[in-house]
Amino acid sequence: MTTVDDVSRPSRLADPDEGISIEELGLAARNHALPLEALRYDVTPVGLHYLLIHYDIPDLDPGRHLLTVDGRVDRPLTLDLAALRERPRVTRRVTLECAGNGRALLTPRPVSQPWLSEAIGTAEWTGTPLAPLLREAGLGADAVDVVFTGADHGVERGIEQDYQRGLPVAEALREEVLLAYEMNGLPLLPQHGAPLRLVVPGWYGMAHVKWLTRITVLDREFDGYQNAVAYRLRTSADDPGVPVTRIEPRALVQPPGFPDFMSRTRVLRPGLCTVEGRAWSGHAPVTAVEVTTDGGLSWAPATLEPATGAAELVNGADPDSAGQRESAGQRESAARGPAVDERWAWRRWRYEWPATPGRYTLGARATDASGRTQPIEQPWNRGGFANNLVQRVEVVVTEDH
Amino acid sequence: MTTVDDVSRPSRLADPDEGISIEELGLAARNHALPLEALRYDVTPVGLHYLLIHYDIPDLDPGRHLLTVDGRVDRPLTLDLAALRERPRVTRRVTLECAGNGRALLTPRPVSQPWLSEAIGTAEWTGTPLAPLLREAGLGADAVDVVFTGADHGVERGIEQDYQRGLPVAEALREEVLLAYEMNGLPLLPQHGAPLRLVVPGWYGMAHVKWLTRITVLDREFDGYQNAVAYRLRTSADDPGVPVTRIEPRALVQPPGFPDFMSRTRVLRPGLCTVEGRAWSGHAPVTAVEVTTDGGLSWAPATLEPATGAAELVNGADPDSAGQRESAGQRESAARGPAVDERWAWRRWRYEWPATPGRYTLGARATDASGRTQPIEQPWNRGGFANNLVQRVEVVVTEDH
Repeated sequence: MTTVDDVSRPSRLADPDEGISIEELGLAARNHALPLEALRYDVTPVGLHYLLIHYDIPDLDPGRHLLTVDGRVDRPLTLDLAALRERPRVTRRVTLECAGNGRALLTPRPVSQPWLSEAIGTAEWTGTPLAPLLREAGLGADAVDVVFTGADHGVERGIEQDYQRGLPVAEALREEVLLAYEMNGLPLLPQHGAPLRLVVPGWYGMAHVKWLTRITVLDREFDGYQNAVAYRLRTSADDPGVPVTRIEPRALVQPPGFPDFMSRTRVLRPGLCTVEGRAWSGHAPVTAVEVTTDGGLSWAPATLEPATGAAELVNGADPDSAGQRESAGQRESAARGPAVDERWAWRRWRYEWPATPGRYTLGARATDASGRTQPIEQPWNRGGFANNLVQRVEVVVTEDH
Repeated sequence: MTTVDDVSRPSRLADPDEGISIEELGLAARNHALPLEALRYDVTPVGLHYLLIHYDIPDLDPGRHLLTVDGRVDRPLTLDLAALRERPRVTRRVTLECAGNGRALLTPRPVSQPWLSEAIGTAEWTGTPLAPLLREAGLGADAVDVVFTGADHGVERGIEQDYQRGLPVAEALREEVLLAYEMNGLPLLPQHGAPLRLVVPGWYGMAHVKWLTRITVLDREFDGYQNAVAYRLRTSADDPGVPVTRIEPRALVQPPGFPDFMSRTRVLRPGLCTVEGRAWSGHAPVTAVEVTTDGGLSWAPATLEPATGAAELVNGADPDSAGQRESAGQRESAARGPAVDERWAWRRWRYEWPATPGRYTLGARATDASGRTQPIEQPWNRGGFANNLVQRVEVVVTEDH
């Protein structure tokens, strides 16, 4: 019992009536979720953005940190932070979501980080685009995958590893992909990948490698643990499955009223209530949000705000308004300084609800331009990935005013 | 079922084999703990400090925020943030711990926020001392308790309330108590009480009222929910109990080596390992830390660093060195700018462990100058408060180098 092989146990599903274990709780204590009232902020304040840290936060010295670009390139490169900061500088507002968001609501529950619905956040990431750097290194014509290595080190299912993820070369060359060194206008915090991380707008969090030390171009598909074993949609333990990639559409309700401490049930006075929330998708722009107050039996359209969160409202369900929204967003960005690309950020929506006494289950459902939407009953996969079940917010509207 | 009374359920204890419930998990997802590797930082980076938010983070405008001082005072006062910032400015480094830390490790487990061992953090709080303000308002000779009201609003066990805590007047007049508007040199974040909170060095977190709006002096003991019902040490549901006040001594190990993702078991190579951690107490200075590698069967003394985390080591078990430590700390503070009072901050300790292959359970035990120390078997109380059971860190030292 004294080799690395012995510290991990095999993956498993919880028994039907099995509560959350102390091990799962230990992960929930480490890995922060977004308190849902923080959906009110266009950009998530520091410390409220979700976090999923596979191993430990590494202790890195920004002054000595080096990024190496190697593998199937003509000119391997090594850059320090100063060199990266001298390159073109871009800021993008991007919504990130953990691929395992919603896992703890599945039946049976895959035993891993037990997310409910809140493993999300939106930040303004500043850095330099990756694609020009890869082109300068001279990508081989035979390049297939680009592997990103982080400095966080641990064991997972018996495999000792630095966290590594491969990205298909076409994705790595997208102009939106960033090597980020700032978050919300400040240097990256240790827990968000300081001093350097990858940001792959539209993809689930596992692709945005933190504490980035190395970029390696391969002439084959990367077969490392996080691509070949961990982040796959499988129906059973022996199904090879398909890779987890882009974020499925999701809308979340910012819970109205005020909460009960323990149950988080919401209390609301009768009257007109503006129900608000956010919606996003990694596949295509969100085109519509619908709201339910009866747990999904009936739905009504919400009003979708422009991508900037500006005051001008347009009906998100109207396809003609998409161009209008885009340009409104760009005007807003221009007015407050250098343009911030917000195409990959969540959008606010609103719904006016005449609340009368009773018990309600609120939820919202996003649809994107690719036609994808959210299920009422969640399809199941063994890793508990890419869930986007409609949220359930329990609300009591009281008799008293 | 449509009044406020109906949204809460009575307090309860978990059944012996009952796993963590979805409701408890929901609180664990909201209320952040400190990832234990963050014990490496003298001051906890933004976003890693523990958080316990009873209701929702309120949405307050710092430019319009007012603090009222009223009740049994000669001259009731109303101050805005600008007026508070013009008053004398002090920075104190203070370790905060949630009163419920360790609750989920109790048997039977009180059903509430299910903390393991990590509901802690150390920050540099900047603000103005409370005592001069109370004296300016003219404290009545009959003052007994000072009640602090926050802007966070919710229901708890059927009681709708703004979060309120009473503090005995002698405690409120301690020179260390601050009205804080900055944390780690930046304006308070929303989740830490922006724009104004109370800091009561040495007391558990429930006393450090966030989103502070009102200070009311009473000529009697405050009988509000958080003092009379919630934060009490009770042996049974009908025991009136005693109030939860100051932080019991505790030491935590910064887990050595690297972790397994799921179990968080640590893997270590054989050889000399510096085991490090932090220790603190709200009653009196920590005077000794001992380390166990066999789950508490045997103990060896650790070396306690000066309060500043400076390089000079002194043996914490030697009472003669206390004065030396204090002055070393003050020199260090002076060298980097205005003096920061660190008397209420955790202190680093170290222990050199010659690790040989095998399985170990690491832990540490703090003793303070009042003679208080940590138990190996945790006494139980119905609310799960003021626990300071010795931590258990499972470590595998491998055969391989």
